[in-house]
Amino acid sequence: MAPTKKVGILGATGTVGQRFILLLADHPVFTIHAVGASSRSAGKAYKDAVKWKQSKPIPANVDTLTVKSCVAEEFKECDVVFSGLDSDVAGDIEMAFLKANLVVFSNARNYRRDPTVPLIVPTVNVNHFDIIPHQRTVYGQEKGFLITNANCSTTGLVVPLKALQDAFGPMSHVLVHTQQAISGAGYPGVPSLDILDNVVPYISGEEEKMEWETCKILGGSDGKQFLPLTDTIVSATCTRVPVIDGHLESVSVKFANGCPSEEEIYKVFESYTSESQALGCHSAPEQAILVNRADDRPQPRLDRELAKGQAVTVGRVRPCPVLDVKFTLLVHNTVLGAAGSSVLNAEVAVAKGLI
Amino acid sequence: MAPTKKVGILGATGTVGQRFILLLADHPVFTIHAVGASSRSAGKAYKDAVKWKQSKPIPANVDTLTVKSCVAEEFKECDVVFSGLDSDVAGDIEMAFLKANLVVFSNARNYRRDPTVPLIVPTVNVNHFDIIPHQRTVYGQEKGFLITNANCSTTGLVVPLKALQDAFGPMSHVLVHTQQAISGAGYPGVPSLDILDNVVPYISGEEEKMEWETCKILGGSDGKQFLPLTDTIVSATCTRVPVIDGHLESVSVKFANGCPSEEEIYKVFESYTSESQALGCHSAPEQAILVNRADDRPQPRLDRELAKGQAVTVGRVRPCPVLDVKFTLLVHNTVLGAAGSSVLNAEVAVAKGLI
Amino acid sequence: MAPTKKVGILGATGTVGQRFILLLADHPVFTIHAVGASSRSAGKAYKDAVKWKQSKPIPANVDTLTVKSCVAEEFKECDVVFSGLDSDVAGDIEMAFLKANLVVFSNARNYRRDPTVPLIVPTVNVNHFDIIPHQRTVYGQEKGFLITNANCSTTGLVVPLKALQDAFGPMSHVLVHTQQAISGAGYPGVPSLDILDNVVPYISGEEEKMEWETCKILGGSDGKQFLPLTDTIVSATCTRVPVIDGHLESVSVKFANGCPSEEEIYKVFESYTSESQALGCHSAPEQAILVNRADDRPQPRLDRELAKGQAVTVGRVRPCPVLDVKFTLLVHNTVLGAAGSSVLNAEVAVAKGLI
Amino acid sequence: MAPTKKVGILGATGTVGQRFILLLADHPVFTIHAVGASSRSAGKAYKDAVKWKQSKPIPANVDTLTVKSCVAEEFKECDVVFSGLDSDVAGDIEMAFLKANLVVFSNARNYRRDPTVPLIVPTVNVNHFDIIPHQRTVYGQEKGFLITNANCSTTGLVVPLKALQDAFGPMSHVLVHTQQAISGAGYPGVPSLDILDNVVPYISGEEEKMEWETCKILGGSDGKQFLPLTDTIVSATCTRVPVIDGHLESVSVKFANGCPSEEEIYKVFESYTSESQALGCHSAPEQAILVNRADDRPQPRLDRELAKGQAVTVGRVRPCPVLDVKFTLLVHNTVLGAAGSSVLNAEVAVAKGLI
Repeated sequence: MAPTKKVGILGATGTVGQRFILLLADHPVFTIHAVGASSRSAGKAYKDAVKWKQSKPIPANVDTLTVKSCVAEEFKECDVVFSGLDSDVAGDIEMAFLKANLVVFSNARNYRRDPTVPLIVPTVNVNHFDIIPHQRTVYGQEKGFLITNANCSTTGLVVPLKALQDAFGPMSHVLVHTQQAISGAGYPGVPSLDILDNVVPYISGEEEKMEWETCKILGGSDGKQFLPLTDTIVSATCTRVPVIDGHLESVSVKFANGCPSEEEIYKVFESYTSESQALGCHSAPEQAILVNRADDRPQPRLDRELAKGQAVTVGRVRPCPVLDVKFTLLVHNTVLGAAGSSVLNAEVAVAKGLI
Repeated sequence: MAPTKKVGILGATGTVGQRFILLLADHPVFTIHAVGASSRSAGKAYKDAVKWKQSKPIPANVDTLTVKSCVAEEFKECDVVFSGLDSDVAGDIEMAFLKANLVVFSNARNYRRDPTVPLIVPTVNVNHFDIIPHQRTVYGQEKGFLITNANCSTTGLVVPLKALQDAFGPMSHVLVHTQQAISGAGYPGVPSLDILDNVVPYISGEEEKMEWETCKILGGSDGKQFLPLTDTIVSATCTRVPVIDGHLESVSVKFANGCPSEEEIYKVFESYTSESQALGCHSAPEQAILVNRADDRPQPRLDRELAKGQAVTVGRVRPCPVLDVKFTLLVHNTVLGAAGSSVLNAEVAVAKGLI
Repeated sequence: MAPTKKVGILGATGTVGQRFILLLADHPVFTIHAVGASSRSAGKAYKDAVKWKQSKPIPANVDTLTVKSCVAEEFKECDVVFSGLDSDVAGDIEMAFLKANLVVFSNARNYRRDPTVPLIVPTVNVNHFDIIPHQRTVYGQEKGFLITNANCSTTGLVVPLKALQDAFGPMSHVLVHTQQAISGAGYPGVPSLDILDNVVPYISGEEEKMEWETCKILGGSDGKQFLPLTDTIVSATCTRVPVIDGHLESVSVKFANGCPSEEEIYKVFESYTSESQALGCHSAPEQAILVNRADDRPQPRLDRELAKGQAVTVGRVRPCPVLDVKFTLLVHNTVLGAAGSSVLNAEVAVAKGLI
Repeated sequence: MAPTKKVGILGATGTVGQRFILLLADHPVFTIHAVGASSRSAGKAYKDAVKWKQSKPIPANVDTLTVKSCVAEEFKECDVVFSGLDSDVAGDIEMAFLKANLVVFSNARNYRRDPTVPLIVPTVNVNHFDIIPHQRTVYGQEKGFLITNANCSTTGLVVPLKALQDAFGPMSHVLVHTQQAISGAGYPGVPSLDILDNVVPYISGEEEKMEWETCKILGGSDGKQFLPLTDTIVSATCTRVPVIDGHLESVSVKFANGCPSEEEIYKVFESYTSESQALGCHSAPEQAILVNRADDRPQPRLDRELAKGQAVTVGRVRPCPVLDVKFTLLVHNTVLGAAGSSVLNAEVAVAKGLI
């Protein structure tokens, strides 16, 4: 079966854009039709415009595509537009695309707080797609809409939290400490002099994002508005470590209604499944949560490529003397934590008949 | 003034032993008189027995010392014995030295829980030396005694906690996440295949040590027994990162009697001073806590050498939504976190007339 | 088509053994029938005996195999035995297997200098298989034989040298400088304290191996003996760098009969093909040499996975003021440089009817 | 004795400028009088203008200096001006300073090829200062003059080559392979995504610089012009490795008049001494070349700080099958390889009465 949906990629020369291209290169539903980047790159062949930093080569067919400017007119034939734009330009461009009646899946942070824009982690809250009819009304579009995915570190956190919330009810407190890979900062991103033989205990804006995004994603939606969690308090500390890919997070949680046993928690993680999996989407992982019970796992270098980067690996479930329980998770920050979420979200939208 | 106290070093060829040698090389009070290691090394010149891994060369006078076996008879001329032995052999050897009426400062974990052995961080609780007369009675010694220093990661934690406790009263909850340097595991220690482009979310036994050592160190002593904190709950998560030296720790605390402001906390850190500093000891840092208010500090590579590794650097004081307040600290794990504590503890003992 | 040849793997728990398992997991010709390791591991399930360090999980079917001792009787059903044994034990074990009439492909160095044992890089000199009848005569075997593959760094070097030699005649001088990945030293291998923020300018025995192996591999065979190059002088300098996988080598060569142009050399590299490719072997790369003309390539992290690690990537061809021409090459040290060579060599042996 | 010479530092906020400040902070002859940087920084306090990346803090007295623009009028009180400017601006500014009759020691490459400007490595060719009277005539200055120091990697190379040349006569061929630290590229410099788990086999312009600078430095001067070596052929290959500080170089040389023994070479290295040492300059190392005969040395992390970074460490002297002899050297690229050369050159100029 040949792919049937034409897709465009904005910010196609950046690190997120490069991941979009790899994920969409042999896709059964989507075919890369157009790539957009800054005016500096527009008009060049993709391979001449990009500083390609992936360990797989540029897919054939994409390398010779002519880079377009990021204007909606150039992408009007696209059924889906994926945006890997930086937040300093994403705001205006994505809104222009939406108002041109295009379907946009954005990796940027600009519209995540918008009360009509879903913030979707595909193995957590694809039920938030139910706000699309309302969004179309607000923005006066017939078929266009805009979906955002979450910050890379939030994405990893909410998958196991959703499993816990579904099984054991609300959590009153969540305390998370991240050790984030350098690829999360894009290219050139983190200078090597800052990170070799070092850890940087700060990522601008990251802690705030984790603290509020978690509550929007884990909250409900009534089709007109989102209902973020109000009784869950999140405290995040974010650091940068010398790791290429894979964010590691140490999490402590306290449950509102009593603490389950470690074994119950492991079982819940192992059996957790999400709607995107039930819909049979191409990029949905077989298991949304992979459990590794070894003492010293998950580890970024050994576990990030499991399930092609679309699952979250969890281990070290144990009691927390201060809250209730502690565990460690790993998320591939440029797959599930970025482009992989957008692609799977788009597959869900196709499955739901929204595209 | 020439040094007057002869010192011996056990485990002198290991990584902690090498640090002892550097710290004692030009010391105003102590002079290296004897070095001990395993029977495999005994009889060799030190420079032939050691795989020296420091960025400064082996001090003259030490390189040609003949390595001795770790038996008390060989060290009987030593006024002070520093032990950098591994815990699998430290138990028997250190006890034999104590029973030979020798003064031992140990970096090993074996006697840290002993109810007559102080666990001392020199800028925190040198008042625990007051149990020495009692210890001598118990072990039937006239001048010999045994002091342990704390685990490297505990050492970093208790310095700012002590400052907070002195100023604002007890803390009910402490939650700490460490990112520990590879030098903490000795040599050969961490295989490079385990840590390059990686983080290992587990260090055997480390979390338990941080959780109970903190309560012994921050508790009192009545001269006969220690009075560990019973109302402070500590939860630790320990990880290994690709950093040569310097443990970074992210800490959240809750106070029993209400939370001070960030500015009050910064002031308390900046003005904190300890008895070892008041005694004018040679290795005591000018300030026990160095405050760095930049958003992205402390960092291991940039801050670990400050105050010759004998201070703790603290930054990022800010509210914790879950507990009361969060901050980040850095401790040089092989200086204040190991050999540097022992040396400063010994200086304090000299100043107090115990040696 | 189901695999038809049963294979055994010696040293199956080591790093080379783990690579063998990954390479043979879904192989069209070979099926993993037995795994052998030290007596410490024998009798355990493979997953319990191994410290698995690969980024892909242990293949199903292998994880529950019971580890055998490395004695020939236990492997007598195997059509092929791959040896990833360390050289300190490989000598006796491999000889015992050969004398038990088994077919052995060894990654160890022990028999590389044996005048009846081929030293084969599969994209260079599979014509050396022609000595097998003679070897069988010498060792009195009917179907068993022993093949070695080359040192990882030699393997990378000889592929482009063979292309140059075929096209432009003999080289009088070859000077090579390597920057070798830590995986080449096995596990635990290189201590992290030795290699983080560092380069080690020495690998024991490596320079000598490169200097003589090159001449055996690039020399001829008359079916009774090998005819190593005698007029090519090789000088090697070998260093260890903090890279996980992929040896980078800087090469200068002088030709006996005059120097071709850069463009001629690039063309020769691009068009080079070997017998193992012509035989259509499963693991043979489409191109044995991949040329990358960018100024700053090849690079280990970006290029090592190309062609599944079975090709050598070459770039930076330019004049050498001292010799004739300089270039840079990259070889995946644990694939083509180790297990991948053995597997492809075995495929060639099957194709030639030797197994 | 109080310092008597006022110095200015251009490019004071950059990585080379930061090194100048550390080296000059407690200098017996020089006192930091003025710091200059881009117009963006001018007018700010130094501590507010700089992103300080050194492991020692900003020296007191410097942190509050007001940054000046890099115009000669602002530095007219300075007896010496050190330039750490980038080459894209160094050309015009340094010439303007020279023409304002100022004494300039430059780390930039712009005037290294100028036939009246010495290219001086202070432990190699301070005799080239004899061209200063001629330079002053050419540029019409009474007391001002301009001295450059060499590229960091050239600097390391020429120290042992000078020792060999003095002892054994000219070398006909020199082949060098470098593994260069990231600090050589300044800040932000090398992106971490380019160098973690990687080696980059190319540094723009570096190989050409090593090839010609070596011949100018090792050549003579007749007081009117330089007499670069014409019969020594140099071939350089330069790579970037994940090391903070310290360039490692593998060198092969061929002598015009026959090859000395390894032991003779070691003796020559050990006994080599230069004029800057004989003059008793403050920053001159006790030994210009440190020999380490261990198999696996020098290593960047272990040896770069020896002699405060002003010596070159040499090891692994052994026969080269292709040329005559091979050895390995290490140079601290931001000390002797950059700011340290300039400072020692200036001390020599003071000792010679040129300032």
